[in-house]
Amino acid sequence: MTASASHPVVALAIGDAAGISAELAAKALTDPQIRDAAHYVIVGDRRLLAQGEKIAGVGSTCETWTPGTPLKTGPQPILVDLGNINPAIVEHGQASVATGGAALQNFRTILRLGAAGAVDAVAFTPFNKYAMKLALPSYVDEIEVITHETGAKGNGREFNILDKLWNARVTSHVPLKDVAKYITKDAVLAGIELTDRCMREAGVDNPRIAVAGLNPHAGDGGNFGREEIDEIEPAVVAAKAKGITCEGPFPPDTVFVRASRGDFDAVQTMFHDQGQIAMKLMGFERGVTLIAGYGFPICTPAHGTAYDIAGKGVANIGATRQALLIAAALSKPVDIDAATRSQRFEAVVSSLRQAA
Amino acid sequence: MTASASHPVVALAIGDAAGISAELAAKALTDPQIRDAAHYVIVGDRRLLAQGEKIAGVGSTCETWTPGTPLKTGPQPILVDLGNINPAIVEHGQASVATGGAALQNFRTILRLGAAGAVDAVAFTPFNKYAMKLALPSYVDEIEVITHETGAKGNGREFNILDKLWNARVTSHVPLKDVAKYITKDAVLAGIELTDRCMREAGVDNPRIAVAGLNPHAGDGGNFGREEIDEIEPAVVAAKAKGITCEGPFPPDTVFVRASRGDFDAVQTMFHDQGQIAMKLMGFERGVTLIAGYGFPICTPAHGTAYDIAGKGVANIGATRQALLIAAALSKPVDIDAATRSQRFEAVVSSLRQAA
Repeated sequence: MTASASHPVVALAIGDAAGISAELAAKALTDPQIRDAAHYVIVGDRRLLAQGEKIAGVGSTCETWTPGTPLKTGPQPILVDLGNINPAIVEHGQASVATGGAALQNFRTILRLGAAGAVDAVAFTPFNKYAMKLALPSYVDEIEVITHETGAKGNGREFNILDKLWNARVTSHVPLKDVAKYITKDAVLAGIELTDRCMREAGVDNPRIAVAGLNPHAGDGGNFGREEIDEIEPAVVAAKAKGITCEGPFPPDTVFVRASRGDFDAVQTMFHDQGQIAMKLMGFERGVTLIAGYGFPICTPAHGTAYDIAGKGVANIGATRQALLIAAALSKPVDIDAATRSQRFEAVVSSLRQAA
Repeated sequence: MTASASHPVVALAIGDAAGISAELAAKALTDPQIRDAAHYVIVGDRRLLAQGEKIAGVGSTCETWTPGTPLKTGPQPILVDLGNINPAIVEHGQASVATGGAALQNFRTILRLGAAGAVDAVAFTPFNKYAMKLALPSYVDEIEVITHETGAKGNGREFNILDKLWNARVTSHVPLKDVAKYITKDAVLAGIELTDRCMREAGVDNPRIAVAGLNPHAGDGGNFGREEIDEIEPAVVAAKAKGITCEGPFPPDTVFVRASRGDFDAVQTMFHDQGQIAMKLMGFERGVTLIAGYGFPICTPAHGTAYDIAGKGVANIGATRQALLIAAALSKPVDIDAATRSQRFEAVVSSLRQAA
C-alpha cells in the first residue's frame, strides 16, 4: 500500500496542553477542507486529544497506532500516543514544566519523522515559550530545535503568511548590531530564490516579490548606508536575470503599505522586525508561520496558546487550517509502502523513548 | 502693541508650488479652528498664494507686509512676499529647480524668523524632496537645513503624531549598521525626557510612554543582543525615577499593536524604521511631523505634495490643521512690541536677500 500522490502524509504535533492546542487539533481533524488536503498522523497524548475533542464538541477523530503493528495512513487520522501528559493534572492557562515537556517531545517526534522520510510535511498547534523553557532551560526558539533534531546546517528560513501576503527575511534572531554584516548579495539572492521557489511550490504562480532596503529611505542614494547599492540592488538584478519577478530595494517604511494594497505577493525583508512590525499590525495573529529549507515543510498558526480562552471551545480554527493546507501544498509525497513507513515510525518513537 | 499671550505668532512657509501646498495654506487661513489658535505670518510668493486661494475657492486671506513699515501681527494674517516664484511658469505635478528653490527660501526664512525670536513657532506645507535637491544638490533632509539655519548643535528630535499617538526615535537618518552604538542609556533617557516634556507642553497630561527594545523580541533576555539589559532598561528606570510614566523595553514588533489599542500615548523607538513602518501602516499620512528641540516648534503635515491632485481644489486640510494647532500649542510666546518684531523681520529678510 502506497500513499496517494494526491494525499501527502502530514504529522501534526499537539502543542501546549494548558492552551487551545488540543482543541485546535481536534477541530482540524473534523474540518472537511483539512481532511481533503492530506492524510494525518497526530502526535501527542491520547487523553489530551480526547479532552480537546470534548472541548471542541467533536467525536473521536483518530485511530490509535499500536507500536509493533503496521502504521497505515489513509483518510482516517492516526494517533501516535506518546502518553506524555495527563490532562487531569493540567490547569488551563498555567504554563508548567509538564506542558512544556510534552509539547517539546511532540515537536521532536514530528521533526524526526520528517527528517526520517516517514511523513511528507509536519505542523504543530501553538507552543508556549515559557513552558518550553521550563522544560528545557537552554530552549531559544523552534529553529534551534529543528536544526538540532534534523541535523541541518541552519539553512532554513521562516516565512510569515497573512492571507495572500508572504514575508520572508534574510536574517532573523540576530542582534540588530550584527544584521548589516549578513546583508550580502549572496544572502539576499538566496533569500529571494527560496521565497520564489516556496511560493511557486505552494501554488503562487510567478510571485511578485518586493525587496526591502536595509537603511532609512533605503539608504537615500548612499546618504544613510550603502548596503542597498553594494549588496541588495545587485541581488535583485541577479534574481531578475534568473527569471524571478522581483523589484527593489524599496524604502522599508512604505513597502508594506504598497504590499497591503496588493502591489506585491511577498516582501523580502532584511531583518526580523522590518517584517514583524508590519505583519503584526496587519493582523498576523490570523496568519501562518512556515519554516522551509529542511527538506520538508514545517507549519504552525502564528497565534499563541490563547490561555485566556483555553477550555472554552471557542478557539478559531482559521490559522490552523491555513497552516495545514500550506503544509500539504508544500509537501513532496514520497511513495513508501506501509511496512517501510512503520519501520521509520518505530525507529523514531524508540529513539525518543531512549532519549527520555 | 504686544502679542497676546493666548495668541502665539506662527510663521507658515508655503511649500512646493507644483503640489497642493499653496492651496493648503489658503485653506488653513480660512479655517476657524486654525484662526482661533494663533496669529499668522505667511512666507512665500504673493502670486502663488493668490493661485492657492483661487484653487481653494476662498477669498483673499492676507495683508501683504511692506518692508520698511511696521509688521503688525493680529487676527489678520500677514504675508511676507518673497516674490520668488511665478505660478504662471509652474506646471502642477512637475518638480523643478524653481519650485524647489522657492520652497527652500521660504523654509530658510521661517527658520531664521524662529531663531531670531521674531515668531513663536513655525510650520510649512509639504516640500518635494526631489525639487529641493534640484535647487540644492547637497540637500539631505529638513533637519540638516534646520541645523544650518538655526546654528543648533543637532540636538533636535523629530516626532510623528497620528491622532493621539506620538512616536519619537532615539536615532533617525543613521545607517542601520551604526544604530546600536548610539543606543546608550544617556541617549535613550534624553529621548524619553524630551518626549515627556514636549507632550506635556502640547497638553498631554502625564503621557504614558512605551519604550521599544532594539533587538528581535527585545533581545529575549540577552539571547539576541544586550542593549535592552545594558542601556534601555536602565534608561527606563532612570526616567521613572524622574517621575515620567514610562514602561519597557518592549518587543518592537508588538509595541505598536498595543499602542494602537490605546495602551500608550507615545512609543519611544530606537531607530527610524521601527516607528515609520508602523506609523505609515497605521495611516501616518494623515498625521503630523513635529521637529522639536530648536527653541521653537517646527510642524508640517506628514503627507507629501500630492502632485496627482494639485490644482483640483480637493486637498484635505486635516493634517495641516493638526500641524498648525500643535505648533501653536507648543509655542512659548514672548512679548515683543511691533517695532522689535519689525526690526527682526527686516533683519531676516535682508539677510536672505544678501544670501540669494
